Amino acid sequence: MAVYTEVSDDVLAAFLADYDIGALVAFRGIAEGVENSNYSLRTTGGDFILTLYEKRVDPVELPWFLGLMEHLAGHSITCPRPVHGRDGVALRKLCGRHAAITTFLPGVWPRRVRPEHCGPVGAALAALHLAGAGYAPTRRNALGPEGWEPLLERSRPGANGVQFGLGAELAAALKRILAAWPLGLPVGHIHADLFPDNVFFLGGKLSGLIDFYFAATDLLAYDLAVCLNAWCFEPDLSLNVTKARAMCSAYAAVRPLSAAERAALPVLCQGAAMRFVLTRLYDWINTPAGALVTRKDPKEYVRRLRFHLAAPDERAYGL
Amino acid sequence: MAVYTEVSDDVLAAFLADYDIGALVAFRGIAEGVENSNYSLRTTGGDFILTLYEKRVDPVELPWFLGLMEHLAGHSITCPRPVHGRDGVALRKLCGRHAAITTFLPGVWPRRVRPEHCGPVGAALAALHLAGAGYAPTRRNALGPEGWEPLLERSRPGANGVQFGLGAELAAALKRILAAWPLGLPVGHIHADLFPDNVFFLGGKLSGLIDFYFAATDLLAYDLAVCLNAWCFEPDLSLNVTKARAMCSAYAAVRPLSAAERAALPVLCQGAAMRFVLTRLYDWINTPAGALVTRKDPKEYVRRLRFHLAAPDERAYGL
Repeated sequence: MAVYTEVSDDVLAAFLADYDIGALVAFRGIAEGVENSNYSLRTTGGDFILTLYEKRVDPVELPWFLGLMEHLAGHSITCPRPVHGRDGVALRKLCGRHAAITTFLPGVWPRRVRPEHCGPVGAALAALHLAGAGYAPTRRNALGPEGWEPLLERSRPGANGVQFGLGAELAAALKRILAAWPLGLPVGHIHADLFPDNVFFLGGKLSGLIDFYFAATDLLAYDLAVCLNAWCFEPDLSLNVTKARAMCSAYAAVRPLSAAERAALPVLCQGAAMRFVLTRLYDWINTPAGALVTRKDPKEYVRRLRFHLAAPDERAYGL
Repeated sequence: MAVYTEVSDDVLAAFLADYDIGALVAFRGIAEGVENSNYSLRTTGGDFILTLYEKRVDPVELPWFLGLMEHLAGHSITCPRPVHGRDGVALRKLCGRHAAITTFLPGVWPRRVRPEHCGPVGAALAALHLAGAGYAPTRRNALGPEGWEPLLERSRPGANGVQFGLGAELAAALKRILAAWPLGLPVGHIHADLFPDNVFFLGGKLSGLIDFYFAATDLLAYDLAVCLNAWCFEPDLSLNVTKARAMCSAYAAVRPLSAAERAALPVLCQGAAMRFVLTRLYDWINTPAGALVTRKDPKEYVRRLRFHLAAPDERAYGL
């Protein structure tokens, strides 16, 4: 469910009058996504996405996200490009919320990940990392390592209700991860949430990357670790090494991984799994019954975390 | 939220291969609607809606609904037209559910009803009633008068928890409505659920009617009564007589209302309000906490019901 704000037709018509994209043809709420209200918007000028930014996105950060998307779209990354109003401004207000129109990307996100998806995702991620280098502003990763201890503290009282002993298990794992967190690896802009529902494919080819609202400036190889978690585990939560190898080697073919990045892969994967355990756990405990948002089970990422903690070195990922 | 069934991309590609509508371009879940899973589907051949029929729709009735839509679309009613597969069949199976592709209609449903919407809705409803006359199969209206007593019985134990005294109030009102229910009025195929989210407008003109899955064979003027309830009350639940008059006179200009139909309008409106009180009440009581469906407050229709019970005659609706 991803429509929290209803936009009335007269208000929409007035909003569109500030753009040079033609007249309204169709307007439908999009079911995917959980953070913002997204509408599929068709005008006589083409197809667009209208996003109204809700709760979790800090308005102060929106120019950074839109600027990154615009920069990437201008550097051969197929991602939504913010559309500017007649006055040149892309970030506007609608129904009391910040809002932006972006270009529509064709394609379908893979509901079932196959090995042949993983190479293109790795290559696209590396291309995104290279293209991002020219975007000067930075954004601290609020959901990076320094955010994990406070997140765990807020969820610990409820953690054992989710799984007996989970609070202590996560505290011990987090201590170990933070102690081993690598220093000096290459830093840049990362997507930080490149799950399958954020990647479109068309005719067997990757056709676009969406949803940059968790993007931040952090270790590039950490972004690969997020993707390994998101793409390379089977429904039974075993790692598919064929998928992992395809992803890592396609990544490295575009942006070579240093020896230090390779060696850090297990702890980066541990950290990435921890990040999703912690946010899912927090949401699980704090989502009121009856809320319209589907809560995601944190235990899936506890299982991944255990796998990564047991990985002796980068060869566990087929490297 | 209206995506209950996730269709994987490979399964979708195989499904589309049975149609002659081109290759897949885009596929997004649609947020609107509560009964079925709806996807916006774009192919190289154009835009379509893919519907997977969930729980509430009885599969045995699907051919009737699709047949009605096809008949209406062939008789100048702008509604979704079922698309046939290469074998000529429109109703198919996908992911273990019955499924159909229909044509896409441009337009936007009015989030805020203005008086100028109501005339076109009345005229379109009358045109639908006339066009439906040539469709021979009939469907009993399970949510018509004979369904109301059983529905109330199932909700009565929980009714007072929604509003003190509601069970007794509804029982008394229902007794009065059923005793006064008109006999001998013109019968035909009715939409039975023509709420604003089922009517699209484009450039100030009505551009389409959707969602025929409550359609049935019943009193034509009852369908007008449903629309009066759905379109002509203000947010403070007062009747806007300007809207009601616009709707009724535009209806009558296309399909004249008999004196008996006019005289029956108050009780038909009472019955229509009762129908939505009862189904909303049932859903309110029986929707589990945490369900993804937004429950609609039955009390809004209790207020409408009281208005209609107090209406002395059809002049209350501006007739």
